[in-house]
Amino acid sequence: MAEPASTLAAGSVGTVETQYLDLPEPVRLDCGRELHPIRVAYETYGTLSPRRDNVILVCHALSGDAHAAGFAKTPPREGTRDGFGAEDRDGTASKGLGWWDGMIGPGKGFDTDRFFVVSTNLLGGCRGTTGPSSINPATGRPYGPDFPVITVADMVRTERAFLDALGIERLAAVAGGSLGGMQGLEWAIRYPDQVDAVVAIASTHALHPQGVAWNAIAREAIMRDPSWQGGHYYATGRSPGAGMGVARMVGHVTYLSAPALASKFGRRLQAASQRAGDDIRYTITEPEFEVESYLRHQADSFVRRFDANTYIYISRALTYFDLARQYGGGSLTRAFDGVRARTLLIAFSSDWLYPPSASAEVAAALGERAEFHVIDAPYGHDCFLLEEAAQTPIVRKFLGVAT
Amino acid sequence: MAEPASTLAAGSVGTVETQYLDLPEPVRLDCGRELHPIRVAYETYGTLSPRRDNVILVCHALSGDAHAAGFAKTPPREGTRDGFGAEDRDGTASKGLGWWDGMIGPGKGFDTDRFFVVSTNLLGGCRGTTGPSSINPATGRPYGPDFPVITVADMVRTERAFLDALGIERLAAVAGGSLGGMQGLEWAIRYPDQVDAVVAIASTHALHPQGVAWNAIAREAIMRDPSWQGGHYYATGRSPGAGMGVARMVGHVTYLSAPALASKFGRRLQAASQRAGDDIRYTITEPEFEVESYLRHQADSFVRRFDANTYIYISRALTYFDLARQYGGGSLTRAFDGVRARTLLIAFSSDWLYPPSASAEVAAALGERAEFHVIDAPYGHDCFLLEEAAQTPIVRKFLGVAT
Repeated sequence: MAEPASTLAAGSVGTVETQYLDLPEPVRLDCGRELHPIRVAYETYGTLSPRRDNVILVCHALSGDAHAAGFAKTPPREGTRDGFGAEDRDGTASKGLGWWDGMIGPGKGFDTDRFFVVSTNLLGGCRGTTGPSSINPATGRPYGPDFPVITVADMVRTERAFLDALGIERLAAVAGGSLGGMQGLEWAIRYPDQVDAVVAIASTHALHPQGVAWNAIAREAIMRDPSWQGGHYYATGRSPGAGMGVARMVGHVTYLSAPALASKFGRRLQAASQRAGDDIRYTITEPEFEVESYLRHQADSFVRRFDANTYIYISRALTYFDLARQYGGGSLTRAFDGVRARTLLIAFSSDWLYPPSASAEVAAALGERAEFHVIDAPYGHDCFLLEEAAQTPIVRKFLGVAT
Repeated sequence: MAEPASTLAAGSVGTVETQYLDLPEPVRLDCGRELHPIRVAYETYGTLSPRRDNVILVCHALSGDAHAAGFAKTPPREGTRDGFGAEDRDGTASKGLGWWDGMIGPGKGFDTDRFFVVSTNLLGGCRGTTGPSSINPATGRPYGPDFPVITVADMVRTERAFLDALGIERLAAVAGGSLGGMQGLEWAIRYPDQVDAVVAIASTHALHPQGVAWNAIAREAIMRDPSWQGGHYYATGRSPGAGMGVARMVGHVTYLSAPALASKFGRRLQAASQRAGDDIRYTITEPEFEVESYLRHQADSFVRRFDANTYIYISRALTYFDLARQYGGGSLTRAFDGVRARTLLIAFSSDWLYPPSASAEVAAALGERAEFHVIDAPYGHDCFLLEEAAQTPIVRKFLGVAT
């Protein structure tokens, strides 16, 4: 589905158009409900081998989408590349580049010269896959808060059903960062005979309590916005952008490390406010510091492209995810009992939302089946989107591709 | 003004009633405006010596008040003791105990057998001292956003004017935690001949950029609440409790350490949701985890007792505070050039909002004039309210009181 173009940079999968597939059967969810219909938005990069044994499923994080690599055929959407809080270092967002373009392509970490990479928008999303903003066939209106509460397992069940529909049985690997890595670990437990390898970057087996707290605050910020209207804001002319902006700001700060904020912004005042002899403007309503205007800008741009209910549902799924509770009666080791996949775990020294200690717990519970690296890098959780150079050789070697 | 009662616990200053004093003159503020009238709410504990040389001024943090020690004579106010995010470990809040009762009293860290301890509600406050919820004499209505934007220096100027009115010229010490410690350092710079010692606990010379970000998010949460109404919500029947609740939740998480949240709540689900075989309730609107309901409870109780505009103004002052910028042309050492006071700095190993490294920078800039301790304790920034046992001998020794 990728169209290489000679004018594109070396290593690019080219221009890509998102595809859509309607699942033939309902998916039965953890909450007990069945969901139907389900449409899945997806992109693929590379070529499926005749034996269909070279498939890598890439899973995205909270605010991502199916457009993981290459240039979007449709007009660039603002903030695509910075969908997780990563800064747009080189203007990639304005070119419509996929969120993990640095990792997916010919010669890259997930090498499309060898692998057929499939990327879907996850269940509950707002970028083409069925979610709370989709039409509820029972009412003819968007689900809103009537959308079933979903889990990471439900996302993985949907991905399984989607790959079935594509005629793909086995996965050479499931890969992702953050929530994407959670999906990978869930795949390895749920479908042990169908996953050869997992690449879980900046991820965990269960969000730590502070992470649960941050997610709760983000959801509260949205739900306390009167424009949320109990979740039924579609077609009312109002949406909870104010609250979602606050949620996004909280997210941003948790995705970055304190040292990264210090080196990026320090305590610098905005240029406009720097007047001779009196550099403070004494205002409570306007940003004074660069970090303040940065947060406001990030919030504003996110609000324009993301659905608030999707944020709530995915955030909730993030907090529920707990492999030891779900599969091990409290024991992570037992939860992994049936796992056959080799697992690559990468964590970043400055990531305090998904700290290296969490990946270390996964590594310890997997024992011989796991390979664990901690990359020393300063950008916090965002590193999984930014540290392509450090990740690439580790991923290629793990996947058995010559480096 | 304290009335010892034989039935009270040993070490208590007894029952205390908050007093009020109207400053005779306007206070000139950093923003260029003059503020008048100013009423100051205060309490005192202990006895003023004939030479008036035993005065310790205690300064509170963001959400505190003048009631620092003893039992409130007026009915207990919910959440008094937990005004900074500290948990109410022993039901002290319900008894109306002051926020630093563990540190102030006969035989305690700030020993009222020897010192006359004065505690005021700071300028801009909402607990008796003039602030945004006070009546603007020009309009006959509450100031709201017309209240002048204030700084820590303005708080200290107000404290200086207040002590003048009490007939107190010199301070044996200025003491406080967090924003209270900032006031202490500001005192030492601004009135070098009138301060013998400073006790700055869990404090800093300038909030680090991540702290600036958290404060910006808290203010945004309030100001984006439509009930804020541009700050003119008084007497409208609506107030921005929803937004301030979110602000408070953010604050709470930053006051605690991640390990403290983990040991206090872990990933435990609420008891009510623990049903056999299906311990998750699958809800997006209700708390599922204990940490979630804790945050919601803290937010609700805070909203009932605190003014949103005061929160905004004090938060803004916190971010402006930057001694190197204000007094040293960027150099903290130069900012402290004229300081004569001995300074005791205490930081806590798990405090990531006011980390030990910030106190270390103050200590380095003060050189011989500073004594610096890092206490190994798990409760994050809240330690300054909780670690009385560890703080007391250090403070007593520093103040020259037999331990």
